Amino acid sequence: MPSAASDGPVVVTGGAGAIGHVLVGSLVEGGRPVRVIDNLSSGRREALRALEGRGATLRVADLLAPEAWRSELRGASEVWHLAANPDIRKGTADPRTDLEQGTMATFQVLEAARQADVPRIFFASSSVVYGRPSLFPTPEEYGPLLPESLYGASKLASEALLTAYSACYGLTVYLYRFANIIGPGMTHGVLYDFDQKLRRDPARLEVLGDGRQAKSYLRTEACVEAMRFVAAHAAQPVNLYNLGTEDQVSVKELAERMVAAHGGTARIEYTGGERGWPGDVPKQLLSIAKLRALGWSASVTSGEAVDRTIRELVGRRA
Amino acid sequence: MPSAASDGPVVVTGGAGAIGHVLVGSLVEGGRPVRVIDNLSSGRREALRALEGRGATLRVADLLAPEAWRSELRGASEVWHLAANPDIRKGTADPRTDLEQGTMATFQVLEAARQADVPRIFFASSSVVYGRPSLFPTPEEYGPLLPESLYGASKLASEALLTAYSACYGLTVYLYRFANIIGPGMTHGVLYDFDQKLRRDPARLEVLGDGRQAKSYLRTEACVEAMRFVAAHAAQPVNLYNLGTEDQVSVKELAERMVAAHGGTARIEYTGGERGWPGDVPKQLLSIAKLRALGWSASVTSGEAVDRTIRELVGRRA
Repeated sequence: MPSAASDGPVVVTGGAGAIGHVLVGSLVEGGRPVRVIDNLSSGRREALRALEGRGATLRVADLLAPEAWRSELRGASEVWHLAANPDIRKGTADPRTDLEQGTMATFQVLEAARQADVPRIFFASSSVVYGRPSLFPTPEEYGPLLPESLYGASKLASEALLTAYSACYGLTVYLYRFANIIGPGMTHGVLYDFDQKLRRDPARLEVLGDGRQAKSYLRTEACVEAMRFVAAHAAQPVNLYNLGTEDQVSVKELAERMVAAHGGTARIEYTGGERGWPGDVPKQLLSIAKLRALGWSASVTSGEAVDRTIRELVGRRA
Repeated sequence: MPSAASDGPVVVTGGAGAIGHVLVGSLVEGGRPVRVIDNLSSGRREALRALEGRGATLRVADLLAPEAWRSELRGASEVWHLAANPDIRKGTADPRTDLEQGTMATFQVLEAARQADVPRIFFASSSVVYGRPSLFPTPEEYGPLLPESLYGASKLASEALLTAYSACYGLTVYLYRFANIIGPGMTHGVLYDFDQKLRRDPARLEVLGDGRQAKSYLRTEACVEAMRFVAAHAAQPVNLYNLGTEDQVSVKELAERMVAAHGGTARIEYTGGERGWPGDVPKQLLSIAKLRALGWSASVTSGEAVDRTIRELVGRRA
């Protein structure tokens, strides 16, 4: 039986990443000692600097080599497993990426948690596990789950490992299916890509697909708030929640708003096609009825989240 | 684009196993050259002996070492991926088993198929991907999918890899979610276990759980017939079908029928509890409406399949 105290240290994998470091900040703010494990492949050490003196520690290690970090779980009461390859398109180019950094890394985290008797595991899953759903907004109980990217496959595989560990070994698990999470710390994704392209060539913005892909967006700080809210208010053996907002923004709108923020002179060129790339999901809108029933909803819409993030991304160049 | 002829050689992984060798027999019967890849960890070479002179070849190799078998896929038009750890309970004792022999083996098969331009992949999945569903009979579009065993997790992970490969690389994939498949060649499962226990101690049969677990059963030859029927009649990019029968048999009934076949003198002792073991699914009944709509249904019920298999298993000892 799990023996760790419920207010013991918290382990965060990927804690130097775009979402992870915001979570670590929130936990430290609440007085929890936090042990970050991150290989810094996409996370940035600087993101944690200010927190390292305030109760957070960083172990630079790869999850696929558990002997290098397993000791971090000793006495911990929670593991928040956020580490993953953050770039969906990379998985299509090299299918081994998500198998290793997704599925196998999750397995290593679960095995270590089981051996260290850590009772609660939180996992950052994704709306892409739904594949190309026929129902919008898409509720948690939607099926069949036929993901269309290697990244999505690794998220569903990881979810399944978590539920099996819960049933077989008694762990309490939290599965968060994220909408698109955006914020100033992001290092990938459509807004980041648009900003980077316009920095390289202010005259022209190439957009993958026909621009009609439409998705919902949630700010990083809202995502962290929602995760912690569910952690505090749900305690089933398996807790599965969509995290998102109730509106969508099209890729065409994203492109136009980003171009406007860059001065409005760039010509937008669409490559065409329903999907931006093989594995892309053209439409995403999650039902957040379950999250709302628990008592939480986002205070900003997708549209507002996009506008704020564009301002921050573009503002960085000043 | 896949270039192999649609009537080229067929590769069967796990082709020496309880279901695999029946599939190989069926394919050879239909005039198809068959290349079996099997590590003989649970498959038996003898099961293929009679077929080796009739168009089937056997490569003894482990799927985790693709350099030893990759060449078998050259020019093939189909891969039927049946190889896996067949023992669900083993996965709870050693969680690495299903990750490696399930998820990672499936990845190796898909990568080899992609590189060899094999256009069609058939996969033996399982009803255990449904976890503990709240709807019976359970249809293919049921969700959420929260498997309760490491075996189930590896089947869902493999399904997700197949759908991602289909979306990203254009493979046509078939996902068959099996009910309990039974036949004389089986080397695991509840009927096999009961028979083995009564051979060791004819006076007493220990039954895991309270005996009220109830599942549906399909004969191996019917399973192979159904898989080949779907292969011949469905051609979506992703083809997902439950394979089963419409009735259930309880574990108590299985035990009583097996004891009767062994002479009727054994005392049946239940260990108690809703589940037979951690990860066991107490109730399973698949909707086969989709399979029936395609034009196939089993000619024998679960009850008849169980009776026939008990006769064969017990008869082996004569």
